[in-house]
Amino acid sequence: MTDTLSHNTKHLISSLVQQGVVDVVISPGARSMPIALLMVEYASLNPDFQYHIAVDERDAGFLALGRAKAAGAPVALLATSGSAAANYLPAIVEAKIGHVPLIVLTADRPVELVDIGAPQMVNQMALYSGHLKKRVQMVLQDPHPDMTEYIDYHGQALVREAISAPAGPVQINLPLRKPLMPGLGQPWPIVTARQALPTITSLTADLLATWTDRKILGLVGPNEEGWDPVLFAQFATNQQIPLIVDVLSGVRHQALREGIYGIDALLETEVLPPHLLPDVILRFGGTPVSGRLLPWIKAHQIPVIQVGTNFIGHDHSRHTDQTINMTTEHFLLQQLQRHPSLGAVEFWTAWQAVGQLSTQVGLPTLPNDLWVARALSKLPAGHQLVLANSMTVRDFDRLWVPQTKIPIFGNRGTNGIDGTIATAVGVALNGKPTWLALGDLAFFHDMNGLMLAKQAAVNLTVVVTNNHGGGIFSFLPQIGDMPYFETVFGTPLPLDIGKVAALYDATYEQVTSLAALTAIVSEPFTGLRVVELMTDRAINVKIHQDLTDQLRKAIQDATANLD
Amino acid sequence: MTDTLSHNTKHLISSLVQQGVVDVVISPGARSMPIALLMVEYASLNPDFQYHIAVDERDAGFLALGRAKAAGAPVALLATSGSAAANYLPAIVEAKIGHVPLIVLTADRPVELVDIGAPQMVNQMALYSGHLKKRVQMVLQDPHPDMTEYIDYHGQALVREAISAPAGPVQINLPLRKPLMPGLGQPWPIVTARQALPTITSLTADLLATWTDRKILGLVGPNEEGWDPVLFAQFATNQQIPLIVDVLSGVRHQALREGIYGIDALLETEVLPPHLLPDVILRFGGTPVSGRLLPWIKAHQIPVIQVGTNFIGHDHSRHTDQTINMTTEHFLLQQLQRHPSLGAVEFWTAWQAVGQLSTQVGLPTLPNDLWVARALSKLPAGHQLVLANSMTVRDFDRLWVPQTKIPIFGNRGTNGIDGTIATAVGVALNGKPTWLALGDLAFFHDMNGLMLAKQAAVNLTVVVTNNHGGGIFSFLPQIGDMPYFETVFGTPLPLDIGKVAALYDATYEQVTSLAALTAIVSEPFTGLRVVELMTDRAINVKIHQDLTDQLRKAIQDATANLD
Repeated sequence: MTDTLSHNTKHLISSLVQQGVVDVVISPGARSMPIALLMVEYASLNPDFQYHIAVDERDAGFLALGRAKAAGAPVALLATSGSAAANYLPAIVEAKIGHVPLIVLTADRPVELVDIGAPQMVNQMALYSGHLKKRVQMVLQDPHPDMTEYIDYHGQALVREAISAPAGPVQINLPLRKPLMPGLGQPWPIVTARQALPTITSLTADLLATWTDRKILGLVGPNEEGWDPVLFAQFATNQQIPLIVDVLSGVRHQALREGIYGIDALLETEVLPPHLLPDVILRFGGTPVSGRLLPWIKAHQIPVIQVGTNFIGHDHSRHTDQTINMTTEHFLLQQLQRHPSLGAVEFWTAWQAVGQLSTQVGLPTLPNDLWVARALSKLPAGHQLVLANSMTVRDFDRLWVPQTKIPIFGNRGTNGIDGTIATAVGVALNGKPTWLALGDLAFFHDMNGLMLAKQAAVNLTVVVTNNHGGGIFSFLPQIGDMPYFETVFGTPLPLDIGKVAALYDATYEQVTSLAALTAIVSEPFTGLRVVELMTDRAINVKIHQDLTDQLRKAIQDATANLD
Repeated sequence: MTDTLSHNTKHLISSLVQQGVVDVVISPGARSMPIALLMVEYASLNPDFQYHIAVDERDAGFLALGRAKAAGAPVALLATSGSAAANYLPAIVEAKIGHVPLIVLTADRPVELVDIGAPQMVNQMALYSGHLKKRVQMVLQDPHPDMTEYIDYHGQALVREAISAPAGPVQINLPLRKPLMPGLGQPWPIVTARQALPTITSLTADLLATWTDRKILGLVGPNEEGWDPVLFAQFATNQQIPLIVDVLSGVRHQALREGIYGIDALLETEVLPPHLLPDVILRFGGTPVSGRLLPWIKAHQIPVIQVGTNFIGHDHSRHTDQTINMTTEHFLLQQLQRHPSLGAVEFWTAWQAVGQLSTQVGLPTLPNDLWVARALSKLPAGHQLVLANSMTVRDFDRLWVPQTKIPIFGNRGTNGIDGTIATAVGVALNGKPTWLALGDLAFFHDMNGLMLAKQAAVNLTVVVTNNHGGGIFSFLPQIGDMPYFETVFGTPLPLDIGKVAALYDATYEQVTSLAALTAIVSEPFTGLRVVELMTDRAINVKIHQDLTDQLRKAIQDATANLD
């Protein structure tokens, strides 16, 4: 006879698994103990279900986030009660805006302790309020059959809610009374059959017919659903539609050599000739990394048609007026069948002349942040890449031209500096060699993530660009004269990256040349490694300006030849 | 002519200062830049106002928490927009339950970007929802004079809200449009006069008259308002009322030698004779560290009278039925004047026989966690102490007998494992030599706090009891047989504490004897130091059991002699 707690907890675990939850990240605690133990028992019986232990809950959240992104599947989190659960918030706000299905399980003290001075008693139903798709409470110790049925049914419904577009986090709060001992080694109950997902009906649309032979420019924004670059390449070349390919779109690839890379730098030159202005923009995916692109589209009053399911209504330039609510792949296939050649040939050719000039600039021999994006362009097939926010993702958007399809990840929901290493470890849990590029501030913020990397024995190389502080602030105008700048924004941290690497038994290398960094990229390696590149903030700013000057010249030459 | 942004920001800063905000903890970011710069300018002109830079916002929150506790004053926090602000949540939930006045300033993107795909756009008004006393939005770039007046008036009102009983956190969300450059070096405006706090009227009460010559037992729970131990000592001896003195009450002191220490261990023995049962409990302060005390009171149906302003209504044993809503000091003084001898003499004498037996047990020579509480009993005058949750605070409650008044701090709102080191650094910002006792898990969770300690150059000794994992779980019943225990709950971290100390240039010492640890306590030291004591979880459990056996014998001897 299984006790009520164990019985219902097993139903909960089974109902999550029924809807595709593949992993759970557990942060140990007393209140959550019975659930944790039963999850580990379940994992020991079902090799397809994995668990990971992460003591620091902030990192646990980002570990689950990275894992869910790389696995393309919902991942559960389990925290104990109190402020432990509050540490999930940074990863949850990222998951909400970044459309990542996290199933957040929060063990709680029993409801009769709310607000009367019980220690460690937080109002956990209000912890993540506006940042969840849904939250419910399940009382695992309630023996009434209605509760078990609710767990069976609604546990599945919650995972479906988390994975349906737009995906996002859900919370199941689990108030528990003592005693907290589960029954281990007992049989597992059979759960009612998996409930089917409601079919998503894609609306067919033929909006593009009116644009035949017009200048159509595609914008392929950030996306982590694993879009097929070959499909985009076919669409671009067959339809003669130049595509701006965001670094986080996941479709920068040799099949798509005609893509436009580094659009932000191209626009920064302010010398793009008028004939490159499109009649219409076809927009896929999330908000692009380039900060100049949407304002440019709006300033020229170019109509925008937005395609997709996750991001409909998300255009903070408030300029999109037509939306096609179907999956991107469905749309591309449909258009390929209907419109053998939609775009204007001259427009296509004109963009080809400048589309990859940004990536072809020569880099100076003085150490600078851009080396990393250039060197990591040589990543071998089968590797994957995680980019930090701030300058890292901008530099990669400008320069990164992979030789092969490299799955690429970034947290662009909230663009946070937090949890970067834990996210990369989560991505690396799939066993593939993984690279993380980040600056020294993001590295410091999440050093505890290295413990996860060590414990999970992932294959991870962390490339730290150490410019001794908040490099991005150096790009603000008039920064040189600003009083208090160095104190407040330089944020130089007296951090010895080599010692941090040693603390976690990571291999440590410092590189001082682009050749050395590039060599590292192609050498086989297993385990945890930290590669440090020391740069100088002022020199970085100067080099970025020089490259923009070079690019301006190159565009002028290329478009002059064309005329 | 000052720009609107700078003008209103200055009004905001001035209105916070008018109501007693003494410090601000700044985490750098682009959106919050103008506010940060003006705060630093203000600090440069007003030496009484200090700023601190903390890159990791989770630690920034706890730094402010510690500083507010030690200063007994409201402290402001400034974060930039996005997930940065989400990292404050753990400290905010602690501040809410622990009654700490934090003024949380969150720079935000402008309101017209809400929910339409703008990067880094989080619904910041819903970030901390149930965990604030109040939240408002102030639009610093609005030139209308009504907005300035609102900032003047409501900025002050919010700080008053934060500091009035029960104290707690408030949020001011600050949406800002670009450009974000403030005008520096301009004159500061004169703010309207400081608004007076409404007077708190204490209700006088004479509830105790009915209890004259009865057995009255006092319970002095956690409190961080700096209660006067001499006042409690007078109350206890003059009134013949034995006082249970919680380790976090702040009144363990030589003046109060008659206090009852280690009540949890006394109750654990289960041999307290019936004549020690009181007729009534007089309860001060927060929820006691002892988990056995309130259930014991309730099981014997002893009436409870709760005194104070912050904690009225907080009794999770749901047993208190009479409350006196006035400050503790006011109550004590009033009773001292009215009732020269309220309690029963025999009852007083009986408790004196057992009241400090728990602290007098001999400790074994095998390394064990309890050494720390014993050694730190010798802290010199002028030093202060911060205790981590989990086993640390329990061990200190059992054994810690300071020679002098030592200000003592712990985060007992949520009893979290997070932010412990940052809290201690916040406490140490007042310049006093500070000691932090914690286990290896809490140490790992907040290693980034050591960066704050290094940067602030505080005088801090961190005593780490390294039992290689979650020691407290070893005290759970039947733990030895539990499958998966070591994997999930032992949480052994492969962490080299000495290397961590080296990373932050901290002095590192490993101690292997109680004498060595005690010697460290009395030696003069300045700077940052990590002291490691290696212990064994199983041995610890055994020693705790042995000490309880010893204590049981001592109680039986003492009470036999008395009879």
